[in-house]
Amino acid sequence: MKKNKVVIVGTGMVGMSYAYSMLNQGTCEELVLIDLDKKRAEGEAIDLNHGLSFAPRKMKIYAGDYSDCKDAYLICITAGAIQNEGETRLDLLHKNTKIMRSIINEIKKSGFNGILLIATNPVDIMTYVAWKLSGYDKSKVIGSGTTLDSARLRYTLSERLDVNPKDINAYVMGEHGDSQFVAWSYAFSGVQPIYQIASRKDSKINFSDLEEIEDEVRNIAYKIIECKKSTYYGIGMALTRITKAVLDNENSVLTVSSYLNGEYNQDDVYIAVPSIVNKDGVREVIHLALENTEKEKLDNSIEIMKENISKLDI
Amino acid sequence: MKKNKVVIVGTGMVGMSYAYSMLNQGTCEELVLIDLDKKRAEGEAIDLNHGLSFAPRKMKIYAGDYSDCKDAYLICITAGAIQNEGETRLDLLHKNTKIMRSIINEIKKSGFNGILLIATNPVDIMTYVAWKLSGYDKSKVIGSGTTLDSARLRYTLSERLDVNPKDINAYVMGEHGDSQFVAWSYAFSGVQPIYQIASRKDSKINFSDLEEIEDEVRNIAYKIIECKKSTYYGIGMALTRITKAVLDNENSVLTVSSYLNGEYNQDDVYIAVPSIVNKDGVREVIHLALENTEKEKLDNSIEIMKENISKLDI
Amino acid sequence: MKKNKVVIVGTGMVGMSYAYSMLNQGTCEELVLIDLDKKRAEGEAIDLNHGLSFAPRKMKIYAGDYSDCKDAYLICITAGAIQNEGETRLDLLHKNTKIMRSIINEIKKSGFNGILLIATNPVDIMTYVAWKLSGYDKSKVIGSGTTLDSARLRYTLSERLDVNPKDINAYVMGEHGDSQFVAWSYAFSGVQPIYQIASRKDSKINFSDLEEIEDEVRNIAYKIIECKKSTYYGIGMALTRITKAVLDNENSVLTVSSYLNGEYNQDDVYIAVPSIVNKDGVREVIHLALENTEKEKLDNSIEIMKENISKLDI
Amino acid sequence: MKKNKVVIVGTGMVGMSYAYSMLNQGTCEELVLIDLDKKRAEGEAIDLNHGLSFAPRKMKIYAGDYSDCKDAYLICITAGAIQNEGETRLDLLHKNTKIMRSIINEIKKSGFNGILLIATNPVDIMTYVAWKLSGYDKSKVIGSGTTLDSARLRYTLSERLDVNPKDINAYVMGEHGDSQFVAWSYAFSGVQPIYQIASRKDSKINFSDLEEIEDEVRNIAYKIIECKKSTYYGIGMALTRITKAVLDNENSVLTVSSYLNGEYNQDDVYIAVPSIVNKDGVREVIHLALENTEKEKLDNSIEIMKENISKLDI
Repeated sequence: MKKNKVVIVGTGMVGMSYAYSMLNQGTCEELVLIDLDKKRAEGEAIDLNHGLSFAPRKMKIYAGDYSDCKDAYLICITAGAIQNEGETRLDLLHKNTKIMRSIINEIKKSGFNGILLIATNPVDIMTYVAWKLSGYDKSKVIGSGTTLDSARLRYTLSERLDVNPKDINAYVMGEHGDSQFVAWSYAFSGVQPIYQIASRKDSKINFSDLEEIEDEVRNIAYKIIECKKSTYYGIGMALTRITKAVLDNENSVLTVSSYLNGEYNQDDVYIAVPSIVNKDGVREVIHLALENTEKEKLDNSIEIMKENISKLDI
Repeated sequence: MKKNKVVIVGTGMVGMSYAYSMLNQGTCEELVLIDLDKKRAEGEAIDLNHGLSFAPRKMKIYAGDYSDCKDAYLICITAGAIQNEGETRLDLLHKNTKIMRSIINEIKKSGFNGILLIATNPVDIMTYVAWKLSGYDKSKVIGSGTTLDSARLRYTLSERLDVNPKDINAYVMGEHGDSQFVAWSYAFSGVQPIYQIASRKDSKINFSDLEEIEDEVRNIAYKIIECKKSTYYGIGMALTRITKAVLDNENSVLTVSSYLNGEYNQDDVYIAVPSIVNKDGVREVIHLALENTEKEKLDNSIEIMKENISKLDI
Repeated sequence: MKKNKVVIVGTGMVGMSYAYSMLNQGTCEELVLIDLDKKRAEGEAIDLNHGLSFAPRKMKIYAGDYSDCKDAYLICITAGAIQNEGETRLDLLHKNTKIMRSIINEIKKSGFNGILLIATNPVDIMTYVAWKLSGYDKSKVIGSGTTLDSARLRYTLSERLDVNPKDINAYVMGEHGDSQFVAWSYAFSGVQPIYQIASRKDSKINFSDLEEIEDEVRNIAYKIIECKKSTYYGIGMALTRITKAVLDNENSVLTVSSYLNGEYNQDDVYIAVPSIVNKDGVREVIHLALENTEKEKLDNSIEIMKENISKLDI
Repeated sequence: MKKNKVVIVGTGMVGMSYAYSMLNQGTCEELVLIDLDKKRAEGEAIDLNHGLSFAPRKMKIYAGDYSDCKDAYLICITAGAIQNEGETRLDLLHKNTKIMRSIINEIKKSGFNGILLIATNPVDIMTYVAWKLSGYDKSKVIGSGTTLDSARLRYTLSERLDVNPKDINAYVMGEHGDSQFVAWSYAFSGVQPIYQIASRKDSKINFSDLEEIEDEVRNIAYKIIECKKSTYYGIGMALTRITKAVLDNENSVLTVSSYLNGEYNQDDVYIAVPSIVNKDGVREVIHLALENTEKEKLDNSIEIMKENISKLDI
């Protein structure tokens, strides 16, 4: 297994923004692009390679096929269909499950034995599907979860409070989708609880702002899509962040989509909760003692995931 | 003037790949996106901002308008029309000249007094147009020139010779287009002349390969376009590279499009030649003693530029 | 004022570790070294310059004198005497006050109008002295405070909990010295309160460990000194961190030594408390609602500072 | 073998400047410090670890012993004695050979099978000694050679020509010591031959300057030592540079000390010549067609090395 080799399956805008981000940050040494449209993957590899003279790290980038997965350390799957007009959400689920099945089959055939990072939407369900179909270890299959949503929350709070987003310690949990929620009882600016800040008279935010912010974060993707059709830069960097945590064995806390096995009194589901990510994937799910309303939101989010999963033929 | 403030005019794929590259590399502190389609610029700014939690540097990124140019240190213009079917190349030139005029007018009105970096194609001509219309100092108006083509050459040679592209010291000169050429008499792997390498019997490349490589570099954009419709990642990083040379006052040698004022016995034209780039723009054009055939190619390239310029109403 | 120009006064191991860290991280563009021993400063500048070919950013580094302070954006003072045998702590204070006076005089004469970062020990008192003697704005004079001690705490906790130190959100407050304390009620691993973690049965740490950790952090400098005579690498990177927060206008939360003006019901003292640092220095002191015992420790620490200050002739 | 694990033997100022540089640049993931004075190594590891919160990459840093070499990818030996008053140069050679023998023995016992990078002076001879005693493959034993001297040359030329040192392509070859020389016939600013530049009337440098520069580069270490007793920052970054070329499989051209096996019509000697460095160590020695006077200087340098080696009991 090559410690610094990453494979991306799917060279749409999400996959490519992730690839371009890794090139600019020097995240890995070898990068393989796989796409059904092999020509597209080849064009993308060439375009990236032309940036090598200006990159912080020497990399080997090329369009490949599934046999290249064999000795990869991490594979990120971004491929997937998009909901067409007239299709139900369930239609999409079935379609993407089918796509995932064919990808996982190919990956398994290669003899791959590393970390599988899923970014295909609906990501929590697709991560479950990928895990189930692959038979890989739970900890080695990860979804991007709400890593991006948490970054959106951190950015939004940072703007309101005029603080570096890296100093906002706050998470979006649950589904990467409409049932997600902010764990406000564990949200901090530096180490100051957001609740404490909101309760002050002269504060830059108050409690009603918190609801507004939570809504904004949940719906900001729709706004971006309205402006530019789809979102990809934020998720591209979120995937780079997760990849770095794995390749550099960081033991970093990220709200990836993790398998619950008793934590939060739930099991047999993938959902975004703060998790410690290192070279082995998710080393540990962090079990936060949530407030009742927060716990209800998490349970609700999980229920939706389970209901959807139950309808799939996996 | 804010030392670390950059404005991008045009948020198409080139402008945005440049913006995303700067975000991932931490190239500047303040970044403004301007586009006729203000909504698009806003969506892009939001998408970028969501990556801030994962970026190496705190940045302030927003969609703005021309009044934001006032205190910028560098403005990069990537906006421009694309050649439609049925249009001649000259039609395109007239169209982009018109666009450039309106942009330059707005920038001048803002009171901007920094470095103008042009990426709109045909870039050498558009840089001349921008310089002429702006009345700015020659050295402060720069075109991206063959910075990307040189990177393509370095990558291609690095693949053949199995050497880090950063150790390939070789330039594409002339037009960023079909009349460009490689200055082979000044091309090195490390400090070894490529000619010396090609003349050896057991070498990885021979003289006929050089022609092939030159053709490949000249035409690779067409191949990328065939694969993925347009090219943007390579040029995005090339623009970041030039920007860094300016903002960090690097005195770096880059094949940007520079104004000739007697160098190479030419004047009143913008063309890509090795130039020393620092906080003042192009500090100096490097006058290489080219071989006769190379000099002819440069003269030919310049003649094409001048002919085109003469047809423009500027 | 040059946005990216930094001056270091004092080229001992602390000053130089800071300089070398900035060179390796590409933190600023222009770096001036000032020392009474001008030859030493010159030797150091040469040694650093030889690393430029391997550095991420082009820099201009040179040995200078106080006239170079005029247009600097940030000056960091690391110069100071060391406690000799037979000398009391108060003797040292008087000696360093005298040194500080001569440095500040020179800086003022230069017309400097930027941010003053003090690293000379005892740092909280010396920051007060520098502020008082300079007559500069409170917010523009900063001490390194417990930035390093907080990093030591984060490292120690990260080792115990097997979590990335960057995900440990916890601060050492008060004097950079024996009266410092950990604000445990605001200490988190990710967003999980350390208290919550310590109260669990199967946890990697328990409450008695916390005391042990606090002692370890307070005394680790003595251990390092026993091993290698003095400490400089950690503080060097802490100074780089603060400098980056200023130059990049980060609005980052750091436990620098800040002037209290009513916060924590204290005033007319410099002490390390979480503060928001940006291009203007300390934009805001964060007033945490400390637990009683913590507040007592802070008050005690402040009292020691004030007592010492009162004995100085400033 | 762990791809990103580096061991440093010898925690003097050179070893530690190298370690600190790697921490600040995020060059490896695991870093082990070994020193006869184990306490010193422990103190250094602690001091470095305190910088982790401010470093670009999560690292694992600790004081270790030779058993930690087993799965390292690269070991750098910086340990060595210094010439005392009254000792001859040969005395020093014998002393350092003895030290090298004991270190190599321990490394071999560990089962180490990676790249050995030697920085102990006189480095070309010590690299030969390390290779001979270890029995390792020639290509896997490398000396730092004139990597630093070339950086000094690049800096000095960059100052004279006002060009980014990274754009100076020029090498010091031969002994890392008094018999070194500049390969002027292969020295370029960008791609412009220095000889061409020096021959112009209005040039910033002329031919007599070149001799002066060569002398300055050869003797600058003495000047630094006069100013600050010893040199370590430049060499620290040079070692980081070589390490990066190995760990990232860069195929970069560096003037490391390489084993000659027919190249330059020489063999059985280690000497600094431009070499292509990648994950396997020195992949290839570049055989430049030197001018006669340059070739004589190289031969002379090699003769001195061989004469010294012949006196050693290895």
